[in-house]
Formats: sequence, C-alpha cells, structure tokens
Amino acid sequence: MSPRTFSSTISEEALKNLQDLLGDRFLVTEEEIHPYAFDASSLCFFPPAVALPETKEEVLEILRLADKYNFPITPRGSGTATTGSALPIGGGLVVSFTRMNRILEINSEERTAVVEPGVLNGDLKRELKKYNLFYPPDPASYTFSTIGGNVATGAGGPRGLKYGTTKDYVLSLLVGLPGGQTLRTGPGTLKGVVPYNITPLFVGSEGTLGVFLEIQLKLLPLPEKRALFLIYFPEELSALKLGSEILLQGITPACAEFVDKTSILVIKERLDAKTSSIEGLLFLEFDGTKEEVEKVRVKIREILGSKELFFQEAEEELEIEKLWEIRRVISPSLRTLGSKKISDDVVIPRRGSLEFIKFLRNLEKETGVLIAAYGHAGDGNFHVNLIFDEEHEKVALQVREAILRKVLDLAGTLSGEHGVGFTKRSFVVWELNDFQLEIMRKIKALFDPKGLLNPNIKLP
Amino acid sequence: MSPRTFSSTISEEALKNLQDLLGDRFLVTEEEIHPYAFDASSLCFFPPAVALPETKEEVLEILRLADKYNFPITPRGSGTATTGSALPIGGGLVVSFTRMNRILEINSEERTAVVEPGVLNGDLKRELKKYNLFYPPDPASYTFSTIGGNVATGAGGPRGLKYGTTKDYVLSLLVGLPGGQTLRTGPGTLKGVVPYNITPLFVGSEGTLGVFLEIQLKLLPLPEKRALFLIYFPEELSALKLGSEILLQGITPACAEFVDKTSILVIKERLDAKTSSIEGLLFLEFDGTKEEVEKVRVKIREILGSKELFFQEAEEELEIEKLWEIRRVISPSLRTLGSKKISDDVVIPRRGSLEFIKFLRNLEKETGVLIAAYGHAGDGNFHVNLIFDEEHEKVALQVREAILRKVLDLAGTLSGEHGVGFTKRSFVVWELNDFQLEIMRKIKALFDPKGLLNPNIKLP
Repeated sequence: MSPRTFSSTISEEALKNLQDLLGDRFLVTEEEIHPYAFDASSLCFFPPAVALPETKEEVLEILRLADKYNFPITPRGSGTATTGSALPIGGGLVVSFTRMNRILEINSEERTAVVEPGVLNGDLKRELKKYNLFYPPDPASYTFSTIGGNVATGAGGPRGLKYGTTKDYVLSLLVGLPGGQTLRTGPGTLKGVVPYNITPLFVGSEGTLGVFLEIQLKLLPLPEKRALFLIYFPEELSALKLGSEILLQGITPACAEFVDKTSILVIKERLDAKTSSIEGLLFLEFDGTKEEVEKVRVKIREILGSKELFFQEAEEELEIEKLWEIRRVISPSLRTLGSKKISDDVVIPRRGSLEFIKFLRNLEKETGVLIAAYGHAGDGNFHVNLIFDEEHEKVALQVREAILRKVLDLAGTLSGEHGVGFTKRSFVVWELNDFQLEIMRKIKALFDPKGLLNPNIKLP
Repeated sequence: MSPRTFSSTISEEALKNLQDLLGDRFLVTEEEIHPYAFDASSLCFFPPAVALPETKEEVLEILRLADKYNFPITPRGSGTATTGSALPIGGGLVVSFTRMNRILEINSEERTAVVEPGVLNGDLKRELKKYNLFYPPDPASYTFSTIGGNVATGAGGPRGLKYGTTKDYVLSLLVGLPGGQTLRTGPGTLKGVVPYNITPLFVGSEGTLGVFLEIQLKLLPLPEKRALFLIYFPEELSALKLGSEILLQGITPACAEFVDKTSILVIKERLDAKTSSIEGLLFLEFDGTKEEVEKVRVKIREILGSKELFFQEAEEELEIEKLWEIRRVISPSLRTLGSKKISDDVVIPRRGSLEFIKFLRNLEKETGVLIAAYGHAGDGNFHVNLIFDEEHEKVALQVREAILRKVLDLAGTLSGEHGVGFTKRSFVVWELNDFQLEIMRKIKALFDPKGLLNPNIKLP
C-alpha cells in the first residue's frame, strides 16, 4: 500500500451530518480542537474536527459516514501514545472515546469484565479491588490512560515480567469497522477454538484495523501481599546480572526494573543518602500469598547479603508506591539533561542485555550523545532515551539508527509496548521482510479496505 | 467458500516427484497407509499417499509440489484429534510430522524453547524438567500427542484453569505455506508490538492456514510442589458448586476437574471403598511453592471438614498420577456403557454450569440417551458424551443438537479444545454469523488462496 493522501478537510455535507449526530459533542473551533492535536510524542497535527461519541450507536454512525464520505478516522483515548498513533496524521476526524467510560460488567464468578474503551486503566483497577480482582497490565500512564488505548497499543508495564501484557488479558472485542459493521472477535468464554483467534490481531493494531466498542477482559484474583526491593549497585551491569541470576533460580518477580547510570543522574536526590557512587539500580517486586512473599524475601535478603549490596525494602502499599515513584519520574526528568530527547522501547532477548548496554556506553563515549536505558529488564524491554542539544541532532539521529540496527542484530524487536505509530514507521522495513509486510497489508485491507482507519500509522 | 472437490489421487508426475524427494519415506501401499486413515474420531479416510519428511527443506519442497500440481495437504501429528482434522477428507497427501521431532533449543535464561512440530508434549515436558522448566498445556493425550498437533488444535487440558491453553505459550512460529514460502509470525522476543500479532491465528487453525516448521514456546519455572484432592459428593451439582465457591474465594487451583454421575458408573471400582452412594467427584490440584501449597491444603481441608465431605489426598508425584489415572480412564471406559458414543467439548460460562447439568439430566430422562458430562469444570469446558446403542442413533443425534443449542443459549461455545474438524463443521454456522464466517474465509484465502491445506476441515 503506497502512502495515501486524504483531503485534510471533511466535506461540508459530512460535517453537517456529524454536527447533526453529535451536537455540542462535535468540535470544530481551533480552541476546542487544540488538545487533540498532540499526544505524548513531540508531534503536532491539527484535525479538522473531533467527535466525542457517548454510545456505540453513535460510533457506528460515524463509521458509516466515514465510509460514505471517504474521510479518515483516528481513534483516540487519553492521548498518552508516545509515537503519534493518536494523531490525525492522514487528516480526517479524531474520534475521542473518553466519554465512553462505563464499566459494563464485572463478573466475579467468571473473573471477567466488560468495559467501554474510554475507561481509565486506574479506574478499572480501583473498582476491581472492591471485588478482590486484579487487572495486571500497568503502563506508567495507567492512572490516566484508557483501556481502549492500552488495547490499541498492546500496552505493557513493569508487571509484564510475571503477568504478561495487555494481549494476555483481552478475551474478546466488539469492533466497529468502516461502513458501520460490527464484529465480535471471539466467543467470550475462557476457552474456545471454533473461529480463528482474531482478537490478538486488534491488540497492538494502533487504531488501524477497527475501533473498539466493548472490551472483554480476563481478570485474576488480587494478590494478597506485595513487597518491593530497591537495590543499589556500584556498577551498572551488576544490576542486570543479578536480575538474570534470580530468574535462573526459578524465581519470578512481578517486576524487575533496571535503572542505568545515566538515568540515576536525574533521580539522585530521591535515593538513600548513604549511597554516594551508585551506577545501577534494580527494583524487584514480588507478590502472591503472604507465605510465598515472605519466603522469597528471605531468599532475596540472603542473596543481597552475600553480595554486600545496599538495599531498601517496602511492604506497605504507600511505601511501595513511594519507592516506585523514583522509577516513574525518570522519563519526564530526563528532559532536564538536554533540550532534545528521542525515546525508543526496544526489546533484547535476555542473554543479549549485557552486550547491549556495553554497546550503548561505547556509542556514548564515541559520539557524546547521552544515552539513558532503563526499564523492564526482566523481559528485555529497555526504554532507550537519547538526550542532546539542538546542534547535535544529526549525530543523535545516527546514534539512534545504530542502536536500532544493534537491537535487530541481537535478535530483538524495535518496540515492546509503545508501538510503531508515525515515529518508527520508516524503521519497520528493517525488522520485517517483504512477505511479512505483504501479510500485514492484506490483513489491514481485510478489515479496512479503503484505508480509512488511522492512515499513515504503523504500516510503512 | 463453497466446499471444494479435489481429485482423490495425486497426478502421476506429482507422485514421481514426491517419490524422488522422499524415497522410502513416501508411502503408497495400502498396508503402509492404513494407520494414517484414522484419528481419534470414528471416521476413516484413506489418503492416496503419505509423506514422512525429516527436514523443513523437505516440507517446503512438498508445499511447492502441492501448489504446482494442485493437490491438497493434510498435516498430521500423532493423529489424536477427535474431530477428523488429521484425516485427508479433501483427498490428497497426508504429511506426517512424527519424524521432525527434535528439540532445537532450550533457553533457560529467556525461558523459551524451539521445537520441531513432531516433538511429543510428554517428551518435551520430561526434557524441560532437567532444566527446572515447565510447559503447562496438558491434553489427556500429552504422552503421545505432538506439540505441532497441540498447536494446530489449540489444545487445552486440566491445567488450563490456572495456566491457560496452548495459545498462551506459543511465542512465534515458522510457518510453511503452499508454494513453499516461509513466514515467521513474530519477533520471538517475550514482548513485541511491531507487526500485527498473527501467531494466534495459527493456534487452533487445524492445519488450514499453514504447516509448522518450527515452534517457539514460552516456558515457566517448574512449580516446587503439587498436591491433589479427590473429593466425593453424594449429589453431583454440589461438586460444581464447591468448585465455584473456591474460585470466588480467590483461590486458583491448577486444575478443577468435575466427574458427573454417569461417568462415575465406569470408574466405581477404582474409587475408595467407603463411598457407596457417590454422584459427583471433584479433582482439585494445587501447585506452587511448598508454603503456598501447604497453606491452601489447610484451607481446603477446613472447607471439606465443615461440609463433612469424604476426600482422598495425594502429594507424592506417583500417588498424584495414580489418582489422576481415575480421571483419565473415563473417556475410553464410557464405551462399555453402549455400542455408540458421540463426544463434544463445549464451554459454558461458569455461572451457567449448574443450569447446563440440570438440562442434561432432564434430557436424559426424556430421551433415555445416557449423558456423561465430565471435565474442566474450572473453566466451564465439559466433555459431553452421549452413549447409546445403534437403534437409538436418530434420537441421540437430536439430543446432541439440543445440547449444542443450549450451549449457545448459555453464551457458550461449541468447542473449547478439540476444535471443529469435520465432525462439528455443520454446526459452526449456529455459532458464527455470516460476517464472522466471511472474515474467517478471507483469512484462510490470505495464507492459502488455492484452498490446498486441509480442505473440508473447520470452515463450513
């Protein structure tokens, strides 16, 4: 599929129809539209109009109009995407799902929930707690990102190590397609093999295959107990090595988060005072029954003692969240180190992690571009951030390319949870061969033959 | 796609090419072919020829020839499918993968393995134990069914309750397509959202979308400890109720297997002597750390004590397997109750289970057809068996239809783990609407445009 050009405006007749359908929930003035021109990337694309549907019937009517008047649609949740995938890069209508935010069902016996796409991940988690139920995926944005957006990007988070990512919790979807057709993607039972399993096609599809009207999620019982270790290392690679060592002993932390020496620069003040020359951190969270967590704590303390490592420990909810706060501020704080930042969220098979970090440090030395690489060490998903000033942009872009090449050399992948969006689109051809791309394009055409859904996103 | 007719023979030229390629691993005599005319259904279809490739290059050459000479292919593992999906119902070549049975890699650090499709599930489990690793899916056939067949059917098993089914453990596939093209379905890292997630399309595709050349699996650490309860109930529904009660308390057994009163008829002699009027059984297995399992055992004993239920308990591997044997003999033993048997493996959402069993008992009373409904109560996946004599076949078929209708009324699905194959093909239209079927047919055409792979299977 060659890049498609759309008129950046929607026809007068279509605009009128949308206005009639949505009334004051159809936005066209610059002031109203302004918030929808941005996501968490550094891109800016103003849509000609924004729709705020409240029911699936309204969404289906919008999809009918899109097909009839041939205008593109960009579905959007809270706009926390880091890649431009929530922006109307191909022109056309932004459809914001923030007003479709009802939890439609929580079924304790089946351990499932059905939600509208605009429900916030954090709101769902809080509501489920009342039922002693648990929805594990925890992107850093979880208090303000929507389940629909999480499904669209296939969001992960620290808990991915033990619990997997969004894809492991979407049981079925009610999808709306251009033209207004609906498609239920699976039987909605816990097991089922009658149709082809198409639900996972939509998880991580970045709004390019369909829009979500209802999302059925699989849930787990809430773990009884959590405990968090924050471990300090005088040398950064030792933090990664310890993570691997623990996994090889058959222990599976809920989270194993690595903080590299560059990232430590921006959180130094939040760390324990006793720690002067720290080059690496490892956050290890454990959860489960009280007995299980107590047992693993004893084991971890033993390991840390034998290595004479300094660590902090937390077991109360508030204490735990306070320690995690240190990890969460890294991404925004890195901007204090330079005026420009490029972020990627590459994945390396665990055994390549050490080589990867060494490679980054050499690159840093050679080029002078500051490189932070923190994140989900447990599953090899590193958030690599290049920080530089305006005048070094050219060399920074070269550094980025060298890193992405290295990731692929190490049998990794270019994105673990953020997706491709617009910002990584040109690199997809490095990872996928022609035949893989052809299959992707055919799948796209199968659900969206006119290419109206989020054009210019994900597919090169 | 209307049913397609293939010449039941392969052209002389194609046969010669296959013979040249495979030598004595190309079977054409009736005696040699006989074992490949059957699977675990009651169907029989003789293929004109059988191929026993040993390498992926040979498989790809077979796929090239199939495309060139237009003959269908039925991929096959050990032939334990219960639905005819391993039989050459559309004519053409059976390709048996039993000689491609190498474990290509076990990666302890990443907790992954790469296997050829013909590796037996039980052999892989045994090998992984040496590394303290665990591949959970456990279909009843696991000691003699292949991983390739497990992936093709999306096999489940008792452990599905806690651990999910095959789909939750297939990380990526190397697939061969008609014409000899290969497709790697995913990046092979633990996380990754660059391509559309097409791997799950193939899990449960019953040989209709592609053949598996290599299968990459996600593994878990081997649980430290197991413990099994076999609980006796004077009334069958109480067994189901207890299962639900335990799940609602936030306890997740590894397995929760229900045995109904009809099934008890064939295993009575294996049960504990003290139990005269037993109408229901519940197998509850727990696994995890020693502490975790001990804690849950105390809790379960307490619950059982308060209900004054009789139970047996096992904690040593051999004892546990001996108790499970009682569950495993049900399926073959049911044949002693009547000359004919029809089996389905329907799924009911948990809250509909009681109503479903009551419905079956009424139907039994009304029609005289004996109904056994045992299985994976935890996830609502019941093995429903109708047992009858030749002269009651007509009424038995009516009973079957009534049951399948009831399953769909209860928002269930017609198959949880066995698949559609040939035997349930005509019922698929009851579950899926025209648009869902259209999407399935388009997905089929995307990978297999000529319809050469397992024709007349799965899709109506």
